[in-house]
Amino acid sequence: MSSLATPVAATSLAQQFCNVRRQSELLCAPLTPEDMMVQSCAEASPAKWHLAHTTWFFETFILRELDPGYRPFHPDFLWLFNSYYNSVSDQPEKKLRASFSRPGLQEIQAYREYVEKALHKWLKAGAPDEVERRAVMGMHHEQQHQELLLTDIKHALWTNPLRPAYLGLPFENLNAAAVQMEWREYAGGLADIGHTGDGFCFDNELPRHRVYLEPFELASRLVTCAEYLAFVEDGGYRRSELWLSEGWQAVQTEGWRAPLYWHQDKASGEWSAFTLRGEVPLSDLAQTAVCHVSYFEADAFARWAQKRLATEAEWEFAASDARVGGNLLEDGVLHTSVASGYGVQQMFGDAWEWTASAYLGYPGFHALPGALGEYNGKFMSNQMVLRGGSCVTPRTHIRATYRNFFSPATRWQFSGIRLAK
Amino acid sequence: MSSLATPVAATSLAQQFCNVRRQSELLCAPLTPEDMMVQSCAEASPAKWHLAHTTWFFETFILRELDPGYRPFHPDFLWLFNSYYNSVSDQPEKKLRASFSRPGLQEIQAYREYVEKALHKWLKAGAPDEVERRAVMGMHHEQQHQELLLTDIKHALWTNPLRPAYLGLPFENLNAAAVQMEWREYAGGLADIGHTGDGFCFDNELPRHRVYLEPFELASRLVTCAEYLAFVEDGGYRRSELWLSEGWQAVQTEGWRAPLYWHQDKASGEWSAFTLRGEVPLSDLAQTAVCHVSYFEADAFARWAQKRLATEAEWEFAASDARVGGNLLEDGVLHTSVASGYGVQQMFGDAWEWTASAYLGYPGFHALPGALGEYNGKFMSNQMVLRGGSCVTPRTHIRATYRNFFSPATRWQFSGIRLAK
Amino acid sequence: MSSLATPVAATSLAQQFCNVRRQSELLCAPLTPEDMMVQSCAEASPAKWHLAHTTWFFETFILRELDPGYRPFHPDFLWLFNSYYNSVSDQPEKKLRASFSRPGLQEIQAYREYVEKALHKWLKAGAPDEVERRAVMGMHHEQQHQELLLTDIKHALWTNPLRPAYLGLPFENLNAAAVQMEWREYAGGLADIGHTGDGFCFDNELPRHRVYLEPFELASRLVTCAEYLAFVEDGGYRRSELWLSEGWQAVQTEGWRAPLYWHQDKASGEWSAFTLRGEVPLSDLAQTAVCHVSYFEADAFARWAQKRLATEAEWEFAASDARVGGNLLEDGVLHTSVASGYGVQQMFGDAWEWTASAYLGYPGFHALPGALGEYNGKFMSNQMVLRGGSCVTPRTHIRATYRNFFSPATRWQFSGIRLAK
Amino acid sequence: MSSLATPVAATSLAQQFCNVRRQSELLCAPLTPEDMMVQSCAEASPAKWHLAHTTWFFETFILRELDPGYRPFHPDFLWLFNSYYNSVSDQPEKKLRASFSRPGLQEIQAYREYVEKALHKWLKAGAPDEVERRAVMGMHHEQQHQELLLTDIKHALWTNPLRPAYLGLPFENLNAAAVQMEWREYAGGLADIGHTGDGFCFDNELPRHRVYLEPFELASRLVTCAEYLAFVEDGGYRRSELWLSEGWQAVQTEGWRAPLYWHQDKASGEWSAFTLRGEVPLSDLAQTAVCHVSYFEADAFARWAQKRLATEAEWEFAASDARVGGNLLEDGVLHTSVASGYGVQQMFGDAWEWTASAYLGYPGFHALPGALGEYNGKFMSNQMVLRGGSCVTPRTHIRATYRNFFSPATRWQFSGIRLAK
Repeated sequence: MSSLATPVAATSLAQQFCNVRRQSELLCAPLTPEDMMVQSCAEASPAKWHLAHTTWFFETFILRELDPGYRPFHPDFLWLFNSYYNSVSDQPEKKLRASFSRPGLQEIQAYREYVEKALHKWLKAGAPDEVERRAVMGMHHEQQHQELLLTDIKHALWTNPLRPAYLGLPFENLNAAAVQMEWREYAGGLADIGHTGDGFCFDNELPRHRVYLEPFELASRLVTCAEYLAFVEDGGYRRSELWLSEGWQAVQTEGWRAPLYWHQDKASGEWSAFTLRGEVPLSDLAQTAVCHVSYFEADAFARWAQKRLATEAEWEFAASDARVGGNLLEDGVLHTSVASGYGVQQMFGDAWEWTASAYLGYPGFHALPGALGEYNGKFMSNQMVLRGGSCVTPRTHIRATYRNFFSPATRWQFSGIRLAK
Repeated sequence: MSSLATPVAATSLAQQFCNVRRQSELLCAPLTPEDMMVQSCAEASPAKWHLAHTTWFFETFILRELDPGYRPFHPDFLWLFNSYYNSVSDQPEKKLRASFSRPGLQEIQAYREYVEKALHKWLKAGAPDEVERRAVMGMHHEQQHQELLLTDIKHALWTNPLRPAYLGLPFENLNAAAVQMEWREYAGGLADIGHTGDGFCFDNELPRHRVYLEPFELASRLVTCAEYLAFVEDGGYRRSELWLSEGWQAVQTEGWRAPLYWHQDKASGEWSAFTLRGEVPLSDLAQTAVCHVSYFEADAFARWAQKRLATEAEWEFAASDARVGGNLLEDGVLHTSVASGYGVQQMFGDAWEWTASAYLGYPGFHALPGALGEYNGKFMSNQMVLRGGSCVTPRTHIRATYRNFFSPATRWQFSGIRLAK
Repeated sequence: MSSLATPVAATSLAQQFCNVRRQSELLCAPLTPEDMMVQSCAEASPAKWHLAHTTWFFETFILRELDPGYRPFHPDFLWLFNSYYNSVSDQPEKKLRASFSRPGLQEIQAYREYVEKALHKWLKAGAPDEVERRAVMGMHHEQQHQELLLTDIKHALWTNPLRPAYLGLPFENLNAAAVQMEWREYAGGLADIGHTGDGFCFDNELPRHRVYLEPFELASRLVTCAEYLAFVEDGGYRRSELWLSEGWQAVQTEGWRAPLYWHQDKASGEWSAFTLRGEVPLSDLAQTAVCHVSYFEADAFARWAQKRLATEAEWEFAASDARVGGNLLEDGVLHTSVASGYGVQQMFGDAWEWTASAYLGYPGFHALPGALGEYNGKFMSNQMVLRGGSCVTPRTHIRATYRNFFSPATRWQFSGIRLAK
Repeated sequence: MSSLATPVAATSLAQQFCNVRRQSELLCAPLTPEDMMVQSCAEASPAKWHLAHTTWFFETFILRELDPGYRPFHPDFLWLFNSYYNSVSDQPEKKLRASFSRPGLQEIQAYREYVEKALHKWLKAGAPDEVERRAVMGMHHEQQHQELLLTDIKHALWTNPLRPAYLGLPFENLNAAAVQMEWREYAGGLADIGHTGDGFCFDNELPRHRVYLEPFELASRLVTCAEYLAFVEDGGYRRSELWLSEGWQAVQTEGWRAPLYWHQDKASGEWSAFTLRGEVPLSDLAQTAVCHVSYFEADAFARWAQKRLATEAEWEFAASDARVGGNLLEDGVLHTSVASGYGVQQMFGDAWEWTASAYLGYPGFHALPGALGEYNGKFMSNQMVLRGGSCVTPRTHIRATYRNFFSPATRWQFSGIRLAK
């Protein structure tokens, strides 16, 4: 997988567009049409649906809206592959996506090709600014779904009682110990937060605005599986005083005893973890960053460790001078890695970092006009912000101001923990 | 489909076995591997699972139990494709069947071939009586699943928002009016009920026993869609006095307004119905027997018509001298038909007939020993008996003593109404 | 409580009416107005509601319908205290009954007095036949609710974490061993079942009709707690092969490990049981009949004991020559007793006996006309018949043809087990 | 009710303690023991439970912990009346509180007297600082429950189909028009937020910390019912684009069409609202502040009005120089009032104001040590902050830094809307 092209680069927009599109298809290469039908939890969608919906986005918001001569591929796809844009059309219930055996994968591929050709031609010929703007947004949208496709298929394969692997190749470079966790100090004071400059950003990263920060310290790397296992073995999941009230309720009603995908053999007591490369002994992953924890678990771990999580402003302040890099989708590891090197590590990639900040609009926030305004703004309740991307985030998709968000009980993402104090 | 061989006939058991097996595969011919993944309601299973589970039955109860030299096809299939036999092994939760993208269809086909070859060879060479007995049972088991496969795939295709058809060919012979409903009188008295003779039967058809019947009359055909529509239009679904209390509750919580698969266009008021041949105007089906009604609806309709449903003993008494025939799976209609001819019609085929009898053990009933005893006996609560088979029941599978059973709210089967008084 | 008058006896109807009414009030004597507010499970109603609803029945079906000069006590009570008679009016949701703090108990008592005076005066003066007929029905209705009042308040007090007793007096006569369980043989053949004669019966006991019975044997007494404990200790609740499928599901989802109200101390392993006289060691009740078991448990126990439950026809045939007697409400024990004496014991009283028969209409059954037809007929689905009354059934309320019915998972009634073979 | 003493004043702590205690009892004066049993929604508790639990707080955290000679009133009350303090003991499930008919009201009153005497004697004699500190906290705790008692009993009486009033007296002073909504400008900049000074505050109001505020404007009064009705009549509850995604879901699954307690007569189209003084025409309340709206409704209304809600920091900044006053519990109105006068009105009292801020810990927040740390800290997820108190908040309970919090779907509180821009 290391040969995947970096999607958005010094090449033309038309070329970048093709790169992004190709990436989605490459991610499906290890999957059968049957695999691409599975929808194994409420958060997830079938892989085939991701391929269709990302295409729908380009068709709906660019070709249908801006190209009067465009003939839609199929009259029903406008509503069939709409996810949640009420302003566009009604949508099928999300759980119905598992019943979309028709259109079959081949027809979806034809749909992809049809839309792609039309837009590629336009971009290549030189399209109006608004078309280019939306094309870039659609590419970022597709990259988001590339990440979702992998998290969803991981859950799907794990739900299959046979626990098949997505990739057959074993992990490499797991033997080293993670570098020691150190504390980087920040002086705080007034800081400007939010996106700036010419590059693409989502509406929720704006407007750039001023915040006041107390002095704070940030851990130099993510929490490892070994460190998290110490919390588990110290009775972390049995001690109510470590948990938020709703978190404790989740522990009890969901029967949480460890991160999602961890499993303890009853007879031997040995732990293992399911990864995109199959089930592996947890001892093999001990030095990698823990992932698939909820906000509630991240918060409880931090309380147990007598630390806390960073706010999103602290995180962004610390990340603002860092170069995007690290263990991302194009590296092809498809799992968290072992931290090494000097300075603050793993700010980008490896695992999304739960912050102590609720997902709300920045001062002066305005959603985009029209249906695209439903992209981010309408989810601003009961969600926490995550920062930094994960090992399945495309490299050109992430940046220091990027705000991801999930409800605090969510565990199917590659979400991990960085401590602050 | 009319060319399908009658599965159990004057040919050898080995040949009959092959016929049954082939039938299952033919039923899947119009389906893609993706179609065969869909599980769209709690009652249903994916078509691929049916192919595997019917094979599992032969492997588990014959080859594994009775052939010491048999090498199982796959070590995990014993529990993976177990439906509900607790004595055999634990089972995956039923709803997980939609996540079985692996094994893929090809592997399931290889599994089918592997098991089939082994058993066919044995049967052909002359197998012990117990093997032959279980083979016959396994063939009837597979025929049950052929019927389920069609009812399940009908629901799956209907759940797909595009409502694709299983068969593209239109219906024929729908223009005639159904023969007039007449009343056949039966004198009642002492009667013997339950299976007798040499042929195969399930344990729940035994022992044959004596019952006392009051004189009764039976309608000469099933209730038609036109007759049922009159009930709908007379406010049948709005008049609580017509319904059992639990039925009335179902009407309200489920929003029932008509049989499953009926749809009324809001603008025009026109009714249509989804069939295995796609969506058709209800007016085309007006003279066919109504189907996909629950026991609660059958009971409410009968009360509205100032009639009642027959008991299973009355039904069996009336059917005992009738030859099995009518609109069954091999006829390839795949929907109910229009009653014609003299005498009592549609006793077999067309639609399962809800009876007024709860599904309970006959006096002296004993379940089969071992795991096969779980086949029927453990479901004897909260279910009503249905008799006579439907348009998707294999011809050699049905008989006068056959007892089908579903909970009274069930509608996804081809279940209809015959009146009695 | 042993001083309670037998309600329906050789006295006048007017006097009998007063006796029944007084009984309801005496049953509330140990309760505070606050106790009479509690509704602790879906099956139950607050005691105050029972007092009001039984009065509503007389007011609605006699005074309002048949006495043109009658002025209702309160305009809203017609719908407020309607239980489930859709033909009369809409009803408040059942669970709302716990919010009826107003009308207060005093107003309900005034309501009782007002209605009672009006009807008593009429009955005493000589009322038309239809009034007398309905008055008798209303008295039986009130007796049913007396039994419910006690089963409901037992559950309410048990739900209270302090587990207060309804009666403070300890049990007597528990030391003797139950008589040995013996088998009484019945020859079977044609039998007439259903009510006959002049006395009162419900519509579901009619018409009397003929059935054919195979020879059968009935146990001479109910199953004891000691015998049931042997089933528990033999792993009865862990062995799926003993259970109906739905029963096994209930065991797992409800966490059943013993009858309702049984409790095993974790430290000592000792069992206790909650009764209307408070929590007592199960060892004290070892020889009494087990009660508060569901049909599923009764059926599983019978299978474990290699016996079965009787059908309702068998039970009625056996009971038809027995005199009503035994441990009933007026005996004031308020719990099952120890079987003693010769012959078949405990046919009436002690515990309702689950039969193997589903609750359905007899051949030729017709519900009463009008709203009173909703009394019994609309519940004929997914219920099993129980026979014989319990230790909280009024003596004049029970008879050999009486058909009680509950869904097979019900445990809050005094329901027990008599074996057959 | 206007004669109620101001609870915490220039009098001694012992006297203040008595005043608070008496207030709770006075609030129950219009209620019967039966009323005090009702628990009509998941958020609510029975009034009797509030009386007991507030007493439990003093007994548990002061007398049991700090007075070695204290003999508890009842051995079981420690866990029976524990709400959610896991560090103290297990607790009965919240919904069980409706089954606490025993202890009866009289025993609870005896419990109150017993605990009160013991603590009053100690406070009067001069208690250690820690006792005084916790006594003050217990008084504030009891005041919180006074407010809850009224919100809960309002819901309980509304749930009763007869809709009885808590107070029989009609509202006064509703005729005037509300003053015009004007905009007060604030310059923003650096501001210090959080409690300061000697008075009591909860741990979640600390530490005082610096924030940076953009310039903002605040509406001079709360939104009125008339203004909110315009939103309703403009299709506010039918336009998805006005709502957060979870809010829109609530609209659909809960069937929201107006604030809680509003009701539109089907025939006439007239609106009414249920209040603690009974059902009144909405037209009578047109100029009062709207209340019983969720955060989702407040947010949707603001979007419709092309405004927004204030953050809690903006609100506190604006309120920091205002004197606590307005329509509070002691005024005895028990409903929102009509805004009058100059300047910013209704900052305190009338209705809690939903802010745009999630309820999270302030920078450097530490929960109190021990079980009292469970008071506020463990609820810091999925809740929004409300500010300013309501018409049922005790006057000495509220202050500018006070942070109330509820999940965004909550409507049973007196919660209203102040716009910002």
